[in-house]
Amino acid sequence: MIEIAFLGLGVMGKPMAMNLVRAGYRVRSWNRSAGAVAALAAIGGVPAESPREAAEGADILFSMLADDEAARSVVIDAGAFDALKPGAIHVNMATTSVRLAEEFERLHRQKSVSYIAAPVLGRSNVAETGQLEIIVAGEAMAIERVRPLFDCLGRRTWHFGERPERANAIKLAANFMIASAIGTMGEAAALAQGYGASKAGFLDLITSTIFAAPVYKNYGGAIAEGRFEPAGFKMSLGLKDVRLALEAAEAARVPLPIASLLKDNLIDGLAHGEDDFDWAALARVAARRAAQD
Amino acid sequence: MIEIAFLGLGVMGKPMAMNLVRAGYRVRSWNRSAGAVAALAAIGGVPAESPREAAEGADILFSMLADDEAARSVVIDAGAFDALKPGAIHVNMATTSVRLAEEFERLHRQKSVSYIAAPVLGRSNVAETGQLEIIVAGEAMAIERVRPLFDCLGRRTWHFGERPERANAIKLAANFMIASAIGTMGEAAALAQGYGASKAGFLDLITSTIFAAPVYKNYGGAIAEGRFEPAGFKMSLGLKDVRLALEAAEAARVPLPIASLLKDNLIDGLAHGEDDFDWAALARVAARRAAQD
Amino acid sequence: MIEIAFLGLGVMGKPMAMNLVRAGYRVRSWNRSAGAVAALAAIGGVPAESPREAAEGADILFSMLADDEAARSVVIDAGAFDALKPGAIHVNMATTSVRLAEEFERLHRQKSVSYIAAPVLGRSNVAETGQLEIIVAGEAMAIERVRPLFDCLGRRTWHFGERPERANAIKLAANFMIASAIGTMGEAAALAQGYGASKAGFLDLITSTIFAAPVYKNYGGAIAEGRFEPAGFKMSLGLKDVRLALEAAEAARVPLPIASLLKDNLIDGLAHGEDDFDWAALARVAARRAAQD
Amino acid sequence: MIEIAFLGLGVMGKPMAMNLVRAGYRVRSWNRSAGAVAALAAIGGVPAESPREAAEGADILFSMLADDEAARSVVIDAGAFDALKPGAIHVNMATTSVRLAEEFERLHRQKSVSYIAAPVLGRSNVAETGQLEIIVAGEAMAIERVRPLFDCLGRRTWHFGERPERANAIKLAANFMIASAIGTMGEAAALAQGYGASKAGFLDLITSTIFAAPVYKNYGGAIAEGRFEPAGFKMSLGLKDVRLALEAAEAARVPLPIASLLKDNLIDGLAHGEDDFDWAALARVAARRAAQD
Repeated sequence: MIEIAFLGLGVMGKPMAMNLVRAGYRVRSWNRSAGAVAALAAIGGVPAESPREAAEGADILFSMLADDEAARSVVIDAGAFDALKPGAIHVNMATTSVRLAEEFERLHRQKSVSYIAAPVLGRSNVAETGQLEIIVAGEAMAIERVRPLFDCLGRRTWHFGERPERANAIKLAANFMIASAIGTMGEAAALAQGYGASKAGFLDLITSTIFAAPVYKNYGGAIAEGRFEPAGFKMSLGLKDVRLALEAAEAARVPLPIASLLKDNLIDGLAHGEDDFDWAALARVAARRAAQD
Repeated sequence: MIEIAFLGLGVMGKPMAMNLVRAGYRVRSWNRSAGAVAALAAIGGVPAESPREAAEGADILFSMLADDEAARSVVIDAGAFDALKPGAIHVNMATTSVRLAEEFERLHRQKSVSYIAAPVLGRSNVAETGQLEIIVAGEAMAIERVRPLFDCLGRRTWHFGERPERANAIKLAANFMIASAIGTMGEAAALAQGYGASKAGFLDLITSTIFAAPVYKNYGGAIAEGRFEPAGFKMSLGLKDVRLALEAAEAARVPLPIASLLKDNLIDGLAHGEDDFDWAALARVAARRAAQD
Repeated sequence: MIEIAFLGLGVMGKPMAMNLVRAGYRVRSWNRSAGAVAALAAIGGVPAESPREAAEGADILFSMLADDEAARSVVIDAGAFDALKPGAIHVNMATTSVRLAEEFERLHRQKSVSYIAAPVLGRSNVAETGQLEIIVAGEAMAIERVRPLFDCLGRRTWHFGERPERANAIKLAANFMIASAIGTMGEAAALAQGYGASKAGFLDLITSTIFAAPVYKNYGGAIAEGRFEPAGFKMSLGLKDVRLALEAAEAARVPLPIASLLKDNLIDGLAHGEDDFDWAALARVAARRAAQD
Repeated sequence: MIEIAFLGLGVMGKPMAMNLVRAGYRVRSWNRSAGAVAALAAIGGVPAESPREAAEGADILFSMLADDEAARSVVIDAGAFDALKPGAIHVNMATTSVRLAEEFERLHRQKSVSYIAAPVLGRSNVAETGQLEIIVAGEAMAIERVRPLFDCLGRRTWHFGERPERANAIKLAANFMIASAIGTMGEAAALAQGYGASKAGFLDLITSTIFAAPVYKNYGGAIAEGRFEPAGFKMSLGLKDVRLALEAAEAARVPLPIASLLKDNLIDGLAHGEDDFDWAALARVAARRAAQD
C-alpha cells in the first residue's frame, strides 16, 4: 500500500490530511503543535515525532507549510528531505515563491525525488469538502501517480506543465487578482461614498450584477459592514503574497504596476497597525486616504 | 395618455425606445441620423424632425446621448429643454459626468422640470431584452412616475436618493471597476505567461473558479484569444469613462490611484493607435510593457 | 510711444507691471481689486476702470490672471479682447492650460491680433528683480516686438517656436517636475525616518550634495521643519497645475504615471483639509501614509 | 602603524584604496581579478592572495564589493571575517541592503569587531579626487578611529548615529531620489515633445534654471542626446537599488509608491533588453509608452 507523509496540519493542511485518511490512505503526519496530529490519529492517521520520521519510507510526501521559511526549515533542516527514498514524490501544496520551487526542483532532482508544486484555490471550508481547485506543475508521470490523491482533495486538478515554479506563479497571479478586486472595490466604494451613497448600497448593486462572483460578494460584504476581524486572510499575509507575485514578475521581467500599488496600500495598512485585519481592509486604506473614516 | 419623448437612438437608445413602443407607450423620437427613427416609426413610434419637436408637450423626456457634449448640444442648444413644459421630467440614461448632472439639475429646477439621472449597466443585447440594471437618482415623486417605464427597460431599478449626480458617480465607479478587472487580468496573464503558461490556460482557470463572473469571462475570453476587434466598448470610450470617474473623485476629494494607473494605460494604448480596439486591449498594454508581443 | 496694457496685478503681475513702468513704458493697468492699481499709479502707471478700457488702443496687452477661468472672464467676457485693435499683441504670462492657448490663438488670429503664450519660472521675489525665466511661444515677429519688454521682466527668454500651447505645455511640465521633486523628497525622508534618521538630517545631506538646487533646498527646508504655512504655493494650486499637465499629456497621448500618482497625493492632502498648506505638504501625505505623524 | 585591509578594487574601490596608499597608509588589498591589485602594488600597496590573508592582523578592514551576495561571499565565506581580531573595525562602504547591515552588525558584535556602514555619494571620478560624500553609521568610538581615513576618501563625513543600517537606508533613499529625478525628466520631456518641443530644448531650459543640479544636468544631457551607452550606472543596477530601497521601506512599514512605479519602469526597460543601458534610459521607457521612439 502507498505510504503517505503529510507535513503541516494547519488550517488548510489538517482538513486535507483528514480527507486522505478518510479515503482509506495510510498517512503519517507531523505538525509543529501536537493537537492536530492527535486529531488525525483519532480517525486513523499515524503520528510522527518529527518531519524526518514522517518522511521515512514515504512514497508521497505532502507539505502544506506557512511559507518559504517554514518549508525550508521543516523539509530541509528538519531532515524530511534527507529521509526520502529515491523515486519518492514531494508535493508542495503551499503558496510559496517561484524561487523556492526552482531551488527545490533542482535539489530533489539530484536525489531522484520528483518535486511537484500544487498550490490550491479555496479556503479551509473548501478544503474540508474536498473541493479545492488544485494548480499543478511537475513531471507528468509523477503527477499521474498522485492524481488519485488530488481527487480526494480537490474538485479539479489544473495541470500547467513540467516546471513546478509555473504553478506557483499562477497561484500568486490569482492572489494578486483577489487583492486587486478588493483594492478596486475599496476605491470605487470611496468614490460612491464621496457622493453620499452608502458603501453597502453601492456594493450590493455591484456584487448583485456585473460582479456577481464569490470573491466580490465575500469581500464586498466585509467592506460594506466594515467588518475586518476576525481575519479570513490577514493583511500581513496578503502583503507577503503580493510581494511574492512582484518578485516572481521581476524575475520574469514583467512590470506589474497595479500589484505594486496594492503592495504600498498593504504597507499603509500595516503602518496603521492593521496587520491582523482581513485584507478586505485594503478598502479601509482607500477610505482613510479620502478622510472618510 | 402619457407623452414620451426619446432623444438618441444609438446602439443603446434604439432598443430601449423600441421596448417602450412595444409596451404600448406613445413615443416621439429624434436621432441625429434618420435610420433609427424610421425603424422606430415602423413599429408605431412617432418621428420628430428636431429635439425641440420631440420634446414639445412631452410628459417624460428620455435622453440617451453619447456624452456630455452631445447632451448639451441636443438637449440645450437644439431646444429640447426649452420646449419642455413645467412639471415635465427629463430622464438622462447616458453615462455622463457628475458635473453635467449638477448643472442640469440646477437648470431644470429653475423651470420646474424634474431631472433624473438613470445610467444603466448592460450592453445593447441586454437593452434589447429589457434586462438592464438601472441606477437612478432624483426626486422620489418623479421617479415613482417613471417607474412603470423603467420596468419596461430594466430588470431592476436601484434607487440612490435625490441627488442625480450620485447615480452618475456610481455608474462611473462601476465602469472603473470593469477597467480594473481587465487591467488586472492583463497583468496577471502577463505574469503567468512570463513563466511559460498560456494566457488562455491561465484565464480559463481563473474565470472558471474564483472569478466566475460575466465581466471576467467575457473580457478574459477576448484577452485569451487576442481578439480586440470589433470593439464592444472602445479604448477611447474607456479612457473617457475612467477620466470622468477621476474627475468625479477629485471633486469629492477621493484619491483613486488604481483608476489613475488605468488611465495612463489607456493613454498608452491610444498612443499606440489602439483607439478603436475593445478596452480588453488594456491587457495588450500590460503585455507590451513585458515585451511579450 | 508704445501703448501697454496690463491685466492682473496680483502677487506676480504687480511687480512685473512695476518693472515696465520703472523702465519708462506707458502702462495702463487694471486689477480686480483697486489697491494694486493705485500702487502702480503712484509710480507713474495709468489706472483703468475696466479690462476694456485698459485694452483700448493698446499695442501690447499683457495678462497675468489666476487661471483659465479668470483669463476667459477678464479678457473675453469683460471686453478687453474686443477692444484690441488689429495688429495688437496679447501676451498671456499666466500658467494656463494648453486648451486655452489653442482657443485663444484661434480667436485672436480671426481678428489679426497675435497671441503669445509666455508663462514664467520664478516666484514673486524673482519677478521683483526682473529675473524671471520666460518661456515663450508664438509668432516670431510678434515676439521680436515684445522682446525689449521681456528683457525688463526676465533674466532670459526661452523661445519655443510658433505654437503658443507649446509654451504652456513646457511650463506645466516644469511644475510637474517640482511636484515630483517634493513628493520624492517626502517618500525618501519617510524612508530615512523609518530607520530613525531625522528628516532634517537626511534632507540637509541630500540638498547639500547631489540635489543642491534651489527647488530642493527651499522645499527640503520646509519639509525638514514641518513648516507648511503660510504657503508660497498652495496644495490646491499644485493640484490644479498637475491636473493641467495631465490633461495636456492626455490630449497629446503621453502617459504620465508619476504625475498621476502626485495628483492622487495632492487630493489626499485636500481630503485632509490641507488646501491652503504649501505644496511642500506633499511630504506630509507620504509621512501620514507611513503613520509617522 | 595602523594595518589596513581593503577588499574589492573595482571601479570605486580601486581609486579609494589608492588614495589611502598615497596618503602613506599600509594597505593590504585583495580583488577578485588580479590587475587592480598589481596597480595598487605598483604604488606601494601590499597584495594579498585571499580575503582571509588580507584581513589577518588588520586593524581596519574596508570592503567595497558589488552587492550583498559579494559581501557575504568575500567577507564571510572566504574567511576575511574569521581572520579579523577582536577590536578590529569593518567598514563596509558599498551600497548594500539594510538587512545585510543588521546581520553583519549582529555577527560582528559577537566577536567584538565593530561594524560600520559607510556608503558613499559620488562616482569613480569623485572617488579619484577624494571628494566622496560619506554616509556613516556605527559605534561612535570606532568611527572616530576611522575618521582620518574617511578624510582621505571624502569631502565630508555625514554621521547618522549608531545603527549601521540607517546609513544604508539613507543611501538607498538617495539613489531612489536619483531614479525619480530621471524618471520624472523622462515623463516631462515626453510631455514637451508631445507638443513638438525638442527634448534637448526642454531639458536645457529646465537644467539651466530651477533644476540646475549636477544630477539633472548629467542625466538630462544623456536624455537629450539619447545617449545611453556606455552606462555610468546600468539599468540593472538601478533596479537592484530601487528594489533594495523598497525592501528597506517595507521592513520599516513606509509606503513608497513613486519608487514602486520606478521599479516597474526599470523592469519594463529590462524586458526590452536595456539591462546594460545607463539608467538615464528610464526616459526611454516613458517615451516608448508615448510611442515617441
